[in-house]
Amino acid sequence: MAIKHFSSADINGFADRQRARFINSLSGFKSANLVATIDEQGITNLAMISSVFHIGASPALVGMIIRPTAVQPPAKNTLKKANINDADNKAVPRNTLANIKRTGIYTINHVSADIYQQAHQTSARYDDAISEFDAVGLTETYIDGVAAPFVQQSQLKFSLSVREITPLTINNTILVIGEVSHVLVDNIAVKDDGYIDIESINTAAVSGLDSYHTTTRLSRLSYAKVDRPVQALDI
Amino acid sequence: MAIKHFSSADINGFADRQRARFINSLSGFKSANLVATIDEQGITNLAMISSVFHIGASPALVGMIIRPTAVQPPAKNTLKKANINDADNKAVPRNTLANIKRTGIYTINHVSADIYQQAHQTSARYDDAISEFDAVGLTETYIDGVAAPFVQQSQLKFSLSVREITPLTINNTILVIGEVSHVLVDNIAVKDDGYIDIESINTAAVSGLDSYHTTTRLSRLSYAKVDRPVQALDI
Repeated sequence: MAIKHFSSADINGFADRQRARFINSLSGFKSANLVATIDEQGITNLAMISSVFHIGASPALVGMIIRPTAVQPPAKNTLKKANINDADNKAVPRNTLANIKRTGIYTINHVSADIYQQAHQTSARYDDAISEFDAVGLTETYIDGVAAPFVQQSQLKFSLSVREITPLTINNTILVIGEVSHVLVDNIAVKDDGYIDIESINTAAVSGLDSYHTTTRLSRLSYAKVDRPVQALDI
Repeated sequence: MAIKHFSSADINGFADRQRARFINSLSGFKSANLVATIDEQGITNLAMISSVFHIGASPALVGMIIRPTAVQPPAKNTLKKANINDADNKAVPRNTLANIKRTGIYTINHVSADIYQQAHQTSARYDDAISEFDAVGLTETYIDGVAAPFVQQSQLKFSLSVREITPLTINNTILVIGEVSHVLVDNIAVKDDGYIDIESINTAAVSGLDSYHTTTRLSRLSYAKVDRPVQALDI
């Protein structure tokens, strides 16, 4: 292989979208999820997000990074800046954050290979009065005690109560941390030891800003110990 | 499909490791990376981490969640708690955080299908005086101006200068944010538009605590617009 070295000066010399695609590729494969919320008028909102990550299991905490400025209408002299933001992260409508703040509740829904194009389409800038569920052809479903909608087509989905909303002043993104309240999952995927085989329900992975992937398991591996090699586990 | 509903009461009723495996599966596919650091005595450290995520492209910021208490030697009456922490996240040696604090520099190295077993093995609790590079059979490599080692076998790796270390008081994990300084990548993977085809260099994805996967691209998709359907892009 021919390893190429890019310095920060090289990267700063990239065009804005080129740099955004490049840097978004560095972290590795990303989770593919739809965040669903509802406002006080009952208008639902659905946003593709690739920055959901695990924070802790006890309590069950999940984080996500959102960039609420991404779809603020660009003023004349800030057009360039708005475009940079667009390229930097998937557009996450400010509705998502506003709804989470108002209701305290949201759902995260795995994007599978069956719905990845519809999921991607939610990042178009629909008017506030339009639900992305309707616009892209996904179906709302509800359970008792959870005000926010779930995506019916998703085979692993969970509701969260917001616990912390922390601005990251370093670049004006927002870290939203929620505590898991209900999990809805295709039962065949849940193994006796607690592992959920998300490959078996065709959950997608994302690379960069716009590439979607299915997966093939290499192996589950045993808990690593100093005195013996890791071993493959049965699923 | 038969969707099963788990309430938070159900989840709280799980055994600790079962709950850890279950909750770690919820966020979707995770990135597979090795974090490399060095201490003042020149002892290197290598730690498997599945919580690296994109924060922003301009400046180029990458975050990761680490749980530095995971390998504190358990005192007699805290043994149970220490085990819970173990199960909750891959063991990230406190050396990683200590080295980042002392030197300000670390590298993140993609884990490919070729080295996933060695990468997983780094999470065993090696003695402080032992470098995980030596223990698992990976090779240190260096570039001018970066004190921390890279993993020679990794085909996408980058160095970072630490920018923020933020304790998440909600569960005593630490959010470490670094700014990318140098990127080393197999040149065939870098596309003209900036996208890096991390599938072509066999970068792995992780699910749950211990499952490793390769990927198969569904498609890259065009930037979503309200007035037209998304289209597949050439790679």
